[in-house]
Amino acid sequence: MSVKTIGKFLINDLHIHLRQGALMKAVTPALNNAGIGAVFVMPNLQPPITTSDQAIAYRSELQKLAPNVTFLMSLYLNPDLTPAEIRKAKANGVVGVKSYPRGVTTNSEGGIESYLVYYDVFGTMEEVGMVLNLHGEIPSDPDNDICILNAEERFLTHLKQLHADFPNLRIVLEHATTRAAVECVKSLGSTVGCTITVHHLELIVDDWAGKCHNYCKPVAKYPHDRKALQDVIKEGHPRFFLGTDSAPHPRHLKETSSCAAGVYTGEHILAYLANALASFDAIERLLQFGTNFGAAFYRLTDADLKGASAVTLVEQDFVIPKIIKFIDDEGVAREIIPYKAGETLKYTVNA
Amino acid sequence: MSVKTIGKFLINDLHIHLRQGALMKAVTPALNNAGIGAVFVMPNLQPPITTSDQAIAYRSELQKLAPNVTFLMSLYLNPDLTPAEIRKAKANGVVGVKSYPRGVTTNSEGGIESYLVYYDVFGTMEEVGMVLNLHGEIPSDPDNDICILNAEERFLTHLKQLHADFPNLRIVLEHATTRAAVECVKSLGSTVGCTITVHHLELIVDDWAGKCHNYCKPVAKYPHDRKALQDVIKEGHPRFFLGTDSAPHPRHLKETSSCAAGVYTGEHILAYLANALASFDAIERLLQFGTNFGAAFYRLTDADLKGASAVTLVEQDFVIPKIIKFIDDEGVAREIIPYKAGETLKYTVNA
Repeated sequence: MSVKTIGKFLINDLHIHLRQGALMKAVTPALNNAGIGAVFVMPNLQPPITTSDQAIAYRSELQKLAPNVTFLMSLYLNPDLTPAEIRKAKANGVVGVKSYPRGVTTNSEGGIESYLVYYDVFGTMEEVGMVLNLHGEIPSDPDNDICILNAEERFLTHLKQLHADFPNLRIVLEHATTRAAVECVKSLGSTVGCTITVHHLELIVDDWAGKCHNYCKPVAKYPHDRKALQDVIKEGHPRFFLGTDSAPHPRHLKETSSCAAGVYTGEHILAYLANALASFDAIERLLQFGTNFGAAFYRLTDADLKGASAVTLVEQDFVIPKIIKFIDDEGVAREIIPYKAGETLKYTVNA
Repeated sequence: MSVKTIGKFLINDLHIHLRQGALMKAVTPALNNAGIGAVFVMPNLQPPITTSDQAIAYRSELQKLAPNVTFLMSLYLNPDLTPAEIRKAKANGVVGVKSYPRGVTTNSEGGIESYLVYYDVFGTMEEVGMVLNLHGEIPSDPDNDICILNAEERFLTHLKQLHADFPNLRIVLEHATTRAAVECVKSLGSTVGCTITVHHLELIVDDWAGKCHNYCKPVAKYPHDRKALQDVIKEGHPRFFLGTDSAPHPRHLKETSSCAAGVYTGEHILAYLANALASFDAIERLLQFGTNFGAAFYRLTDADLKGASAVTLVEQDFVIPKIIKFIDDEGVAREIIPYKAGETLKYTVNA
């Protein structure tokens, strides 16, 4: 049987959760030869990564686990962050600062409530060339009709205000899920980028309702929202690029009364992405969306990406594992259920 | 410590799932002296209740388990239902016919796709005075932007058409969840009623996202939708009445990758209802919403309700059990997790 070769790819994942301890060790090594060049690593650990020193130490841990991958590090925006710390972070190669509105996702209890107190920090970030990464949801507020379905749309005024006040600050609206967000980012200047996950290209609200392994924040929304995410990739808009938000949780924290938010795509991201793009006839955008647009926005150089090698993507059935086993920090046998567990993708990486 | 007495109540639950076999035996007996007069029993068993004979046999089983409760029975709308069967059902005291759109909730795979083929049946129901009970959602259809969030609103054209074509047929829009549904029912004639669950008075989308025990169909929606449900009760609209949609599932079918849809309120419905109404200052509507409006729409007589006795509702803390244990039909120990498990309500029934 002949196998159709799509091409050689080395993608960049500009939004990933790699955790810490045993879970980090369970998910990071497999990234090493998976066709992944650079990953932008989220800082929402326990405790969060708030200083350059922590970020450097975390990067060092990750590099040992996957030496060929370029780990782009971030700090967790918090009131103790100073312009001096921003300069130090920049000097140490830290790339971005992540803002979490309070309480909207995993380990975001220390998230922000107002951006005004951070204007000195943002000014310094703009000056030194760091990226501001926004989890673009406001906290739910039923008295004002705000819930997880409109929390992203209601956040967009903040994005517009920040861009107006810091026009040269590179800002990324992370994991956009709505048509409103896509239209807003398109309307803004060249310093505003936007990540899109693979699962938000495939899921709508029906797909996570009662299906815990598809439950993430922001939640997948209406079909017209999914269509807008697909369309902006299909048109090849250069400010929209891959950020998987891959977010592993042990199975027992997913299949329970209060499910942890996060979809795990992990090391199979190239296959997932090809499969998703093909579903709406956009596989010809794989190189742009998956590699080049993100690299350009983050100003990655060949030197930044020297570690990893491109891999060959082929059109061939590939069954996602049903379960990934690991031993947690307490020595307990645990499982991770990956996205599309047990399902057959139409693409795979040629070993 | 003095306990404030709210009054004596005997409520009617015009939408309840009592299941079959071991699960039926686990949840039905507790209804017997819980201040519940009549319950309207859903027919979505396996196989569904499609004939009078089945309905009578099912009623007989239920009456043995809770002899003081009046069980109002329904048939599952399906292509084999004939005008003759409707007349037989009416003669045997069957009260309604339930329509499930295909595939939208538990055991609805045999649901309807178009109402036109049922017009003979509906005409006979109108003539003999049976009630048509509508699960008011259309199936999701992403190509037309239809998902579980707008499936109810998109259904309302069917409700309006049925009411226009059968103006004397009593129709109940079951478990309304949206402002659109409330406004639609209000706009229609006196033969159109609407049930509202307790949990939809309290939950929004945030409350079932990742929280399987609050996941039901139709799903709870925006805060403004919840407000509309509360408001129509607060204003005392006589065509809106209690139907809990109490729907027990064993825990292992809830806390899993594909969660069964249903919230279990069961025998504590009077306490739940008082607690919910009090949360939006509407406890004075308890008698109307919980008892009288439903009885009037269903034309229940004192003779229909002779079995049960009113119970005394008091303002006193009441902790909902965390777990209800039962042995399933295979002899396996199972659990049901009730709504608000482990939480403290402010009202209880005085034993």
